[in-house]
Amino acid sequence: MAAEGKGVVLLGAWASPFVIKVKIALSEKGVDFEDREEDLNNKSDLLLKMNPVHKLIPVLIHDGRPICESPIIVEYIDEAWSQGPTLLPSDPHERARSRFWADFADKKVIHSIRSAWFGTAEAQVTGKKELAEWMKLLESEIGEKAYFGGERFGHLDLSLVPYYWWFLALKKTLDLGSASELHLPKLEGWLKRCLLRGSVSAVLRDEDKLCELILQIRKKRLPAN
Amino acid sequence: MAAEGKGVVLLGAWASPFVIKVKIALSEKGVDFEDREEDLNNKSDLLLKMNPVHKLIPVLIHDGRPICESPIIVEYIDEAWSQGPTLLPSDPHERARSRFWADFADKKVIHSIRSAWFGTAEAQVTGKKELAEWMKLLESEIGEKAYFGGERFGHLDLSLVPYYWWFLALKKTLDLGSASELHLPKLEGWLKRCLLRGSVSAVLRDEDKLCELILQIRKKRLPAN
Repeated sequence: MAAEGKGVVLLGAWASPFVIKVKIALSEKGVDFEDREEDLNNKSDLLLKMNPVHKLIPVLIHDGRPICESPIIVEYIDEAWSQGPTLLPSDPHERARSRFWADFADKKVIHSIRSAWFGTAEAQVTGKKELAEWMKLLESEIGEKAYFGGERFGHLDLSLVPYYWWFLALKKTLDLGSASELHLPKLEGWLKRCLLRGSVSAVLRDEDKLCELILQIRKKRLPAN
Repeated sequence: MAAEGKGVVLLGAWASPFVIKVKIALSEKGVDFEDREEDLNNKSDLLLKMNPVHKLIPVLIHDGRPICESPIIVEYIDEAWSQGPTLLPSDPHERARSRFWADFADKKVIHSIRSAWFGTAEAQVTGKKELAEWMKLLESEIGEKAYFGGERFGHLDLSLVPYYWWFLALKKTLDLGSASELHLPKLEGWLKRCLLRGSVSAVLRDEDKLCELILQIRKKRLPAN
């Protein structure tokens, strides 16, 4: 069994931004891995054994040893495999900046996505407003740069692109209020550049499937709608 | 003004575990810094300017540039100053393990501390039970090692020691139920070893002041008690 022995196994769920980040990082590094889709309503014994503290995906199992929490997994991939490009920048201040915005997405953006998607009526309003604010912030953060780190695709791009993909799918599916009308030319250009990479296009291909999932879960969580 | 020019300024609050971590890291590296205590009920313009996204302490300002979020600041300190010991281990798996447990404390332990401290009656019960569980987990994680990383004080020790200090102060101040009766000889021995270091003893000296603060905030948050 690969998960207990040699090799790389990823326990994940295809639509999770946390998992998508890890898949892009593995692909950028050229690491072959076994992709195991978890049923989040019925988590596998392997997941519960490998991540007993959080019981969450993603978990990367490398030669039988688990690594948990997506930002930690992404840095692990960068450090454990010297092959392929270096994902994090080398300058300490740039590294801190990259980690800051990746963490911002994992905390603030995901929180606002959940609120806008299936929060209480009040939380939905706030979530949509916040989403608009976060997207404007990211538009200003990338500015004139080709990628978030400058000239080269890297850590911060792979950390943010799943969230921008989710934002676009939410916009297509729900009424996001002012967030729907945002003009974000820098982020649009950046996404196009990211999608030229096999590592990104391979995991962001099922936009229709994501839109379906968004509607399906919203219906389940908000039965009155 | 140092915050706008050359030098190192830390915006913090003395009792915050997030701030304590950063102070120990700076001290271990031998970095001189200006310690600015923030009034969290009336945050300074400098804090709001330097951390406009989260508006939270700690913020490290190095030569006029802000670094936010304590785990990111600690790694920045380790990377930006080559002087002094290296805080994170060099092995990728050990680095991931160190980051995992530091993150565990920042998420799980702080959440249970807040619940036990001033949550609803129900949340207090859960928080106390969780705190007992987390402390037992950490007791087992250090096991027979002198420090969390092995023979040498490092990243995970400085990331966990403020939380253990908080746990002891809560235990002294409130009835923590089963958590009060825990026998944690490994953590006790570890704390003694940590306190031999000037970097740790300098910031963990005011236990009575912390106990007072705990009672004071509890009284304010739980006026019915």
